[in-house]
Amino acid sequence: MCRWLAYSGSPIVLERALYAPAHSLIDQSLHSELGAEATNGDGFGIGWYDDVAPEPGVFHSVEPAWNDANLKELSGHIRSGHFFAHIRAAIGSAVQQTNCHPFRHDRWLFMHNGYIGEFPPVKRDLVMAIDESLFPEISGHADTEVLFMLALTFGLEDDPAEAVARAIGLVEDVGRRRGVKYPFQGTVATTDGERTWLFRYSSEGKSRSLFFTKHVPTLRQLYPEREILQEVSDDTRLVVSEPMGDLPGAWNEVPESSYGIVGHGDDRLRPFTLKPPSTAVPVGA
Amino acid sequence: MCRWLAYSGSPIVLERALYAPAHSLIDQSLHSELGAEATNGDGFGIGWYDDVAPEPGVFHSVEPAWNDANLKELSGHIRSGHFFAHIRAAIGSAVQQTNCHPFRHDRWLFMHNGYIGEFPPVKRDLVMAIDESLFPEISGHADTEVLFMLALTFGLEDDPAEAVARAIGLVEDVGRRRGVKYPFQGTVATTDGERTWLFRYSSEGKSRSLFFTKHVPTLRQLYPEREILQEVSDDTRLVVSEPMGDLPGAWNEVPESSYGIVGHGDDRLRPFTLKPPSTAVPVGA
Amino acid sequence: MCRWLAYSGSPIVLERALYAPAHSLIDQSLHSELGAEATNGDGFGIGWYDDVAPEPGVFHSVEPAWNDANLKELSGHIRSGHFFAHIRAAIGSAVQQTNCHPFRHDRWLFMHNGYIGEFPPVKRDLVMAIDESLFPEISGHADTEVLFMLALTFGLEDDPAEAVARAIGLVEDVGRRRGVKYPFQGTVATTDGERTWLFRYSSEGKSRSLFFTKHVPTLRQLYPEREILQEVSDDTRLVVSEPMGDLPGAWNEVPESSYGIVGHGDDRLRPFTLKPPSTAVPVGA
Amino acid sequence: MCRWLAYSGSPIVLERALYAPAHSLIDQSLHSELGAEATNGDGFGIGWYDDVAPEPGVFHSVEPAWNDANLKELSGHIRSGHFFAHIRAAIGSAVQQTNCHPFRHDRWLFMHNGYIGEFPPVKRDLVMAIDESLFPEISGHADTEVLFMLALTFGLEDDPAEAVARAIGLVEDVGRRRGVKYPFQGTVATTDGERTWLFRYSSEGKSRSLFFTKHVPTLRQLYPEREILQEVSDDTRLVVSEPMGDLPGAWNEVPESSYGIVGHGDDRLRPFTLKPPSTAVPVGA
Repeated sequence: MCRWLAYSGSPIVLERALYAPAHSLIDQSLHSELGAEATNGDGFGIGWYDDVAPEPGVFHSVEPAWNDANLKELSGHIRSGHFFAHIRAAIGSAVQQTNCHPFRHDRWLFMHNGYIGEFPPVKRDLVMAIDESLFPEISGHADTEVLFMLALTFGLEDDPAEAVARAIGLVEDVGRRRGVKYPFQGTVATTDGERTWLFRYSSEGKSRSLFFTKHVPTLRQLYPEREILQEVSDDTRLVVSEPMGDLPGAWNEVPESSYGIVGHGDDRLRPFTLKPPSTAVPVGA
Repeated sequence: MCRWLAYSGSPIVLERALYAPAHSLIDQSLHSELGAEATNGDGFGIGWYDDVAPEPGVFHSVEPAWNDANLKELSGHIRSGHFFAHIRAAIGSAVQQTNCHPFRHDRWLFMHNGYIGEFPPVKRDLVMAIDESLFPEISGHADTEVLFMLALTFGLEDDPAEAVARAIGLVEDVGRRRGVKYPFQGTVATTDGERTWLFRYSSEGKSRSLFFTKHVPTLRQLYPEREILQEVSDDTRLVVSEPMGDLPGAWNEVPESSYGIVGHGDDRLRPFTLKPPSTAVPVGA
Repeated sequence: MCRWLAYSGSPIVLERALYAPAHSLIDQSLHSELGAEATNGDGFGIGWYDDVAPEPGVFHSVEPAWNDANLKELSGHIRSGHFFAHIRAAIGSAVQQTNCHPFRHDRWLFMHNGYIGEFPPVKRDLVMAIDESLFPEISGHADTEVLFMLALTFGLEDDPAEAVARAIGLVEDVGRRRGVKYPFQGTVATTDGERTWLFRYSSEGKSRSLFFTKHVPTLRQLYPEREILQEVSDDTRLVVSEPMGDLPGAWNEVPESSYGIVGHGDDRLRPFTLKPPSTAVPVGA
Repeated sequence: MCRWLAYSGSPIVLERALYAPAHSLIDQSLHSELGAEATNGDGFGIGWYDDVAPEPGVFHSVEPAWNDANLKELSGHIRSGHFFAHIRAAIGSAVQQTNCHPFRHDRWLFMHNGYIGEFPPVKRDLVMAIDESLFPEISGHADTEVLFMLALTFGLEDDPAEAVARAIGLVEDVGRRRGVKYPFQGTVATTDGERTWLFRYSSEGKSRSLFFTKHVPTLRQLYPEREILQEVSDDTRLVVSEPMGDLPGAWNEVPESSYGIVGHGDDRLRPFTLKPPSTAVPVGA
């Protein structure tokens, strides 16, 4: 129900990724083509890593991204080699900063495009499963924040792929028991500032779209005249919910029910399978 | 660049006009069909007359109307026989309450769907023409507020049709002298709480759309089963920038370059012709 | 901690109670004398009953009350014989509309000046005790919203005094078990639109202040020249966290550890004693 | 009537200047001691210079600074050797981002603690004197923005001291002719990112307070154990409307009717005398 972008590679000024490209993320906030909604005007957020503080910085606003003066300013003054950006189309939860992505815990960022099916009736069971030590951290009411807390409960910081598989596994289990036909939908991205984990999955098997750029060397051959491609390092990657820019052939789509890791040259795509909650013992237990 | 609605007739709870109809104004804030923009998410406003105070009440917000909890609350608790509602798609001026329509001066409300062409370069000349006594009232930077102040300067409270003809006449004159091809575009509504004056005009001769409901007795014959039509008085009228509801044949379009008056049984449509500024001597002069 | 006001009696325009008096509630938002904080600038809310809808209307804003244009407008156009107003000084939870008082459930309003001691560590146990049917209604993170949900869980709609005694009883029990020295502090007001229940209690025995106006006939004798006193009915009452206006001798203080009921001529003050949770069986059970 | 801070010297993370010191600027937003108002809760702004873009970045918000999550985040992630911070107590003009200081024009920042006396009646004459090329830049309604535009009109970018003397000179002349007893009050700071010009003046001769830190080497002798003093360069300076921190003897007060320049080792204090408008020929003329 949203649009997002995850960048990693050579440090760049954020506006080059958020505003400059044709059909940029900011354009998409007003006119999305592949999104479930045409408009994503219910707030946004950015999260970035820098050399100033160990934790990533986050900026959240409930103004529509396309007209937010502060976002324009910050995007023009923040340079980062690793950042997330997310624009929101609210479904149910209030339009307030505490419901805006990306969510943060210590060095980790987490964002999501999709939803937990019929959230209100299943919310309590899910919140109960959050590790007690994390409970005081909950500050909003977005389904994604609960998903993030569950992933942390199941060990996100040690094994992200495993933890997300367990978190969504629990969401599906609880949802099914509550009679929800399709308990989960979406694409998820999480990072520790070094590597980024990407997930595409839905109970229905028709997940929101997800794309990532081909290797920069390949793109340079395709578009030798593009300055930006000469500037950025070989390992630079852009992952998006919807392609941007005007470079046909620059994008690979992440297949249904799969996940990938970007960074440290280790960016294979792997099949994504849920973990049944029986095996999902909370860290706190 | 906006959508608006003007209601007059039997007192009703605002939400019946703002939320209830199919393709309601609130729906249009997210998905407009006839608007210059599909999305009108840059704030909104309502202005209503009641028996509590002589001046109309106004409520402005910069949140998207489709998700504004306060608008939903107020619409469900305010009953009025005469009100304006406006949703905004900003072009240039900041998204802030002081730029939201409807604008108010004493008992008068004023709103606009359109624009003053190339406003920045012509703004100063227009602001200079505002009567000195009104200057301290200017609180925003929307072109429409300037147009309203000019109309007041030219006697809106005495002869609305004449004053608006002079105000837009000045806008065209200044614009032309500044080399603006199409100095004015739009539909305008203004009211004193008794009658509503409607204007449709553009320098280009291709004005934003404007519609008003047929006489209620006629509608009752067309749709005898519609409760709402039985409830409201014969003289009830709804004027909108874009038809709403699901009653084919319920709407008349206001012709190009014309204006009308709703209220006091005097609702003929008349041709609208601008007054050259030469004849437009400011009240203050 | 905050400042609040509860009015019941002859219908009046809200601004007469919110803005007109010397040292009015709005003045107190900027300069409180008896409050724990001098400034209460972290949002506000009003809740009012009218003849338009069965449920009370609520308006919440995160702007400082002293400069909120919409509050001024609405206060000047809403007439009500029964309303709550609350200005907030946040302690911990975010400044967002969903954390603003008064909170609403069906016909009920609830507001609080005070806090649940060391909320983060005890929050989970308290949230777990909320009846499952109410869980989806939780939309913010204020301690007061949790207290309200607990009171509803314990039967607020049937026996407010009993339900609040049980809710605070649970808060004290959980707090003590978690090693919180003073688990609860504050004054609480709740109403169904007919009668208003007031509570003053703190674990420490030093509760926030609470005052209510003497009988109107008595006030008329004290201040025969005051118009407002001639206008309002004999049973009109104003209950406040801090006296306002310039009528010495007009106020009675609610004693420590007591509660009262305003409305239906039944307004005695009674001792307030907590109910141990053992006896507090959730409605849902 | 506000509080502000101007820093120049060794690059530091903003939060060290905004949050860390005892009685910090953020503390002052809630409890000012020397300010005309105890509370400065009507929005705030920061402006900073960095190596990312030639123009300074600005961030404005209308939330009270003491509870603004974004300000806390940004202050912890922006490192700068030259920045302004301002917290506002509105007097008259709306609480909106476009009225928040610091104001920016190209490389220049401008902020003010004080007011133009009886602004509404004199506003028009002052706005008329703004150079036509600057007119479209006006985006708010604060008296300070008008003062900034006048200073730019009178050559701020070439000779700041002269331009401010002429701008305030015009304000006094217009005010006096309009019967305003004390046309101007306040302290002003403006910078091009290299040097900062400071002004303290009021028609009444009782200007708002203004202080600057003694030379760092002197402070090191006074407080040898203070780490921060060892870290920063000798030419680091902090200028504030109200002393912060817990270093008695660290501050010099800027005398009545004087101005100074900080930066490039040229930081003498000089007498400030207004320039009569007769000599103030607008650049545009």
